[in-house]
Amino acid sequence: MLPIIATLGSHSSLQILKGAKEEGFKTAVITKKPMVKIYDSFKVADEIIVVDDYKEMLAQKFSAKFNNFIFIPHGSFVEYIGYENMLKSNLKFFGNRKSLEWESNRRKMFKWLNDSNIKVPKIFNSPDEIDRPCIIKFYGAKGGKGYFFVQDENEFHKRMNNIKEFDDYIIQEYVVGTRFYPHYFYSNLNNELEFFGIDIRYETNADGIGRIPPKFSDKINPTYVVVGNTPVVIRESLLPRVFEMGENLVKASKKFFGGLWGPFCIETVLTEDMEFYAIEVSARIVAGTNLYVDGSQYTKLRYDEPMSTGRRIAREIKKGIETKRLGELLQ
Amino acid sequence: MLPIIATLGSHSSLQILKGAKEEGFKTAVITKKPMVKIYDSFKVADEIIVVDDYKEMLAQKFSAKFNNFIFIPHGSFVEYIGYENMLKSNLKFFGNRKSLEWESNRRKMFKWLNDSNIKVPKIFNSPDEIDRPCIIKFYGAKGGKGYFFVQDENEFHKRMNNIKEFDDYIIQEYVVGTRFYPHYFYSNLNNELEFFGIDIRYETNADGIGRIPPKFSDKINPTYVVVGNTPVVIRESLLPRVFEMGENLVKASKKFFGGLWGPFCIETVLTEDMEFYAIEVSARIVAGTNLYVDGSQYTKLRYDEPMSTGRRIAREIKKGIETKRLGELLQ
Amino acid sequence: MLPIIATLGSHSSLQILKGAKEEGFKTAVITKKPMVKIYDSFKVADEIIVVDDYKEMLAQKFSAKFNNFIFIPHGSFVEYIGYENMLKSNLKFFGNRKSLEWESNRRKMFKWLNDSNIKVPKIFNSPDEIDRPCIIKFYGAKGGKGYFFVQDENEFHKRMNNIKEFDDYIIQEYVVGTRFYPHYFYSNLNNELEFFGIDIRYETNADGIGRIPPKFSDKINPTYVVVGNTPVVIRESLLPRVFEMGENLVKASKKFFGGLWGPFCIETVLTEDMEFYAIEVSARIVAGTNLYVDGSQYTKLRYDEPMSTGRRIAREIKKGIETKRLGELLQ
Repeated sequence: MLPIIATLGSHSSLQILKGAKEEGFKTAVITKKPMVKIYDSFKVADEIIVVDDYKEMLAQKFSAKFNNFIFIPHGSFVEYIGYENMLKSNLKFFGNRKSLEWESNRRKMFKWLNDSNIKVPKIFNSPDEIDRPCIIKFYGAKGGKGYFFVQDENEFHKRMNNIKEFDDYIIQEYVVGTRFYPHYFYSNLNNELEFFGIDIRYETNADGIGRIPPKFSDKINPTYVVVGNTPVVIRESLLPRVFEMGENLVKASKKFFGGLWGPFCIETVLTEDMEFYAIEVSARIVAGTNLYVDGSQYTKLRYDEPMSTGRRIAREIKKGIETKRLGELLQ
Repeated sequence: MLPIIATLGSHSSLQILKGAKEEGFKTAVITKKPMVKIYDSFKVADEIIVVDDYKEMLAQKFSAKFNNFIFIPHGSFVEYIGYENMLKSNLKFFGNRKSLEWESNRRKMFKWLNDSNIKVPKIFNSPDEIDRPCIIKFYGAKGGKGYFFVQDENEFHKRMNNIKEFDDYIIQEYVVGTRFYPHYFYSNLNNELEFFGIDIRYETNADGIGRIPPKFSDKINPTYVVVGNTPVVIRESLLPRVFEMGENLVKASKKFFGGLWGPFCIETVLTEDMEFYAIEVSARIVAGTNLYVDGSQYTKLRYDEPMSTGRRIAREIKKGIETKRLGELLQ
Repeated sequence: MLPIIATLGSHSSLQILKGAKEEGFKTAVITKKPMVKIYDSFKVADEIIVVDDYKEMLAQKFSAKFNNFIFIPHGSFVEYIGYENMLKSNLKFFGNRKSLEWESNRRKMFKWLNDSNIKVPKIFNSPDEIDRPCIIKFYGAKGGKGYFFVQDENEFHKRMNNIKEFDDYIIQEYVVGTRFYPHYFYSNLNNELEFFGIDIRYETNADGIGRIPPKFSDKINPTYVVVGNTPVVIRESLLPRVFEMGENLVKASKKFFGGLWGPFCIETVLTEDMEFYAIEVSARIVAGTNLYVDGSQYTKLRYDEPMSTGRRIAREIKKGIETKRLGELLQ
């Protein structure tokens, strides 16, 4: 009996479930009430399991039912369940759960990027070191709306005074350039890295302030809440570096935590000197792949059928089953 | 005999006619001379009817010919023919013509939005009330290039002095955020709301000023002439609110004017507090759907065939014919 | 025996080769080492010929091998091989090689545009004539990162002092508006102009500066290095002018240099007065067509199959072979 492909009802769940159905799997979604009508409309979930709190999925009452489920982690999955809970859980997850720790812990993330020979923006350890425009990023449960921008130490203190509660933050150089979020899929069954496309994140209000006169926008502090994604293709001569960054991350992951497989993404800024700077790594599917629900400009070169990242995951699982190597995919 | 699907030769006519042909209809376009080569090239119109003035289509000479035509209204249709003329006409239009009055009359539009529990930017009744950056929007035939931006009362008077003629205008708070223009289709045959995708309008010169140094762009007053559309997908967790806004508009339309069916769109801005503000409602197909002539990221989840908004209209008409309920679609 | 479709391994090579394979041709790519893994991954090149320097392809050692090759020129092709070398070469190129001279020589380019009744931004012959914001564009081998922006004569001299070496440059009015890069294909076998879609270039750092507070971005001089492309559709009522510009360029090309056929593009800015200004002409395939590897919103209206610009080139060659008119395509 084929396993059921399941995920939490948010982030990239529609694409994941659609892709699983395209590969012949039954699907299930664990979701809250307001999303039910979405699955009713798009008809990608064979079963809709409604919960009040996503963490209920870890409860004993579901353990028999979920025995035949394979869960596909995504960004909201990690956010709502927590990678610590995922590490302890008996549920079956696609991919290497340990990678989620390495994307969530910023010290580990920078170590991983450094070892992969990927540039990162400069981190300032203390506000009095700020010598250029910076972005302040909050971590942990009380992060609020996320990030903000400061020009210098003075502005840093002024802004921080207005923030009531926070857990942890970093002061990071703001690198000016164009953003590219390349999507990868590494198959550990084939030992092959595939490139799945690129998006640009659409962020409020940062992507709204460029349309108004500077004398007004100067009074607005940009915020960076990700609310959508737009498509882009990259200059062809940059593809070797794009591939190389992905290969290096996979290689370093083997050294540090037993490997990275399935979908992942590097959030980059490309400067006018043609250098990519990595802002973050996502060691699982990113929402930018939702743009390419029937394939991207790049998958269409390689595949003669619609191939989303969600479908590619399901195909890997199917191959794992057929070759009796499924266990290697679920760690 | 199947009716002929027809429209005016502008706005979204190529998509509408292509979609009608995909559903097996014959098509016709009423257009001016310069567009003829466009239809010759794209081969979506079985008949090209050339007029000097779009209003000719209302003339007696066409009444026998148009007896078997179903006209699909779009934005330029409403602009060139006028909703009053459409309301009086004996021609058959897809959708509820009364909805075009409710999108055109701004007092009715705001009433409709309020009753639908959708936030709108604050309207200032007089220039001396302006206490924040505003956008000035002109209505009626002498609107000129459209909208402009003011910071305060002084700038309002300075700008208005340069405008020779105008009919009517509103002073509306400028809401800072990211723009989303979700496309809907409500089927009154199925009693079901479908979500068809989202675009971002591309406006000159507002979408050009963010690329130049502020010291120069500060001297340019942004203008908002819609000249194109770009694609976007929205954060999945926002979809319940996107659906809800559409459902509420349909519900309120039944109360106010006998219902809204077929394609429609809400022009929104999403703030950093995750609130959608509606700038306008379009109670008919919008040009942003031209991006998705073989389906959007969202229709591809639900349909296993290319499904544009234009094609969905034609399919609804076909179903109306098959179920002998066509009359319900043409009001 | 069918000829082999070949190109240099950069720019739009993936699309060109994929399109050729879709039309049944064998393909080859001349490329440098780092790109080899890209072709291995996308599987669009039947033969990968690795060189240290692209100019090697002109060497005698390849002349027998390349006898049955048809080369498809693109932007990097012209940049790395040079149009003078292409004009002298015995290799077979698709299109009229003379057109590459007319796109490369700016005096010829402006003559061509003027004769085509297409507006161009004002050129200032000397810095002391600068009376509005301008963009400075470098030509030739020492152009560095390309273009920069100046507000007035003072800023011009200040910026030029920092530039060590340059060959030639122009001082061109900066036209504010929205950018559109329409893609065309002119078939000289059918005597017909087709419209293939539109992109917007994504440039670093110009497309990054609109997201940061003006007080900071004011210290950054925008640069215009093309690193990607994003999709857009244009207001339908502007299509007649878009077609007309393409038709006029083809007509003038016949007068000046024996005609333009195959793919080409006009890089335009559309002002709020609905005037297109041409910044450049590309007399060969542009990288923006990489967005539409399975067809654009416009090709999907006309073709009932995926039709990229790369595939359209291959189809034209196939038709040339079938009708014994191949010689007309390779000049």
